[in-house]
Amino acid sequence: MRVLGIDPGLTRCGMGVVDGSVGRPLTLVDVNVLRTSADRPVAERLVTIEKGVDAWLDEHRPDAVAIERVFARSDVSTVMGTAQASGIAMVCAARRGLPVALHTPSEVKAAVSGNGRADKAQVGAMVTRILRLDAMPKPADAADALALAITHIWRGGAQARIDQALAAATARARSRR
Amino acid sequence: MRVLGIDPGLTRCGMGVVDGSVGRPLTLVDVNVLRTSADRPVAERLVTIEKGVDAWLDEHRPDAVAIERVFARSDVSTVMGTAQASGIAMVCAARRGLPVALHTPSEVKAAVSGNGRADKAQVGAMVTRILRLDAMPKPADAADALALAITHIWRGGAQARIDQALAAATARARSRR
Repeated sequence: MRVLGIDPGLTRCGMGVVDGSVGRPLTLVDVNVLRTSADRPVAERLVTIEKGVDAWLDEHRPDAVAIERVFARSDVSTVMGTAQASGIAMVCAARRGLPVALHTPSEVKAAVSGNGRADKAQVGAMVTRILRLDAMPKPADAADALALAITHIWRGGAQARIDQALAAATARARSRR
Repeated sequence: MRVLGIDPGLTRCGMGVVDGSVGRPLTLVDVNVLRTSADRPVAERLVTIEKGVDAWLDEHRPDAVAIERVFARSDVSTVMGTAQASGIAMVCAARRGLPVALHTPSEVKAAVSGNGRADKAQVGAMVTRILRLDAMPKPADAADALALAITHIWRGGAQARIDQALAAATARARSRR
């Protein structure tokens, strides 16, 4: 199974491709960070992100795309851009019929390090070990994207089915309100 | 000048097309609300919105697209979807090289009603009057999309140039920090 992990962001969007399956060693295929300039209009920056994600989907042909689930944080201006970048990444994948999974930062930290509150350095160190790399991927967005891909492979399809069932149940509960 | 106004949302995305120029009567060209079901995955819903916006850009060939600027509000789950939908709308327009303008809700309210704190009913009533319609566009998302298009025409190109200069100045200030 090949997974493209995406750590969405308007200024830096991490992308990491990992091959592997549960219980087998995982392999790094490619990792990169898309950058867009804060001097440019948001619409243009989002088009740059769309092109970058599309180019990687063409090149690496992943079986699934794992994207960090965005939550509101203190810096509202950043979270809006992150939400928009994640939306673009989702559309790029869904347009091709690829499964899209969203993992929260704490799910990713827990999956790769066993601790849902691990810091950036711990996540980076575990990604380096899991993928048997010579050096820690830099910047942190690159390591985070790889951690997302690893998480997706390890959590496997079972989790995707649980998430789908939960989403359907939530939607039913909402429609009854 | 023909403007497509978009009131972005995951569940309901309002789209309104208005023809006209400053100091002349404005004309309603078309108005619609794209709906996507909360039962479906977000990625799929965003693809539906992308298709809907693209179809309208093909059909109506606007000169510019005006989108509501999204702010964080109390309901965080809604604002994330709204930010994602607005990102998709921006990309659809920018991919075609169309100018994208963002207007805040209070700018829109002030432009159509003279009061930046007008309520939905007041905005709807003013849109109905400005476009000389027989009835108020329903639901509110439809009226809001038309109000965005009207605002864009009335605020004109001067405002777009001011916004661009401000954005560039902010970016320069940030890069100096």
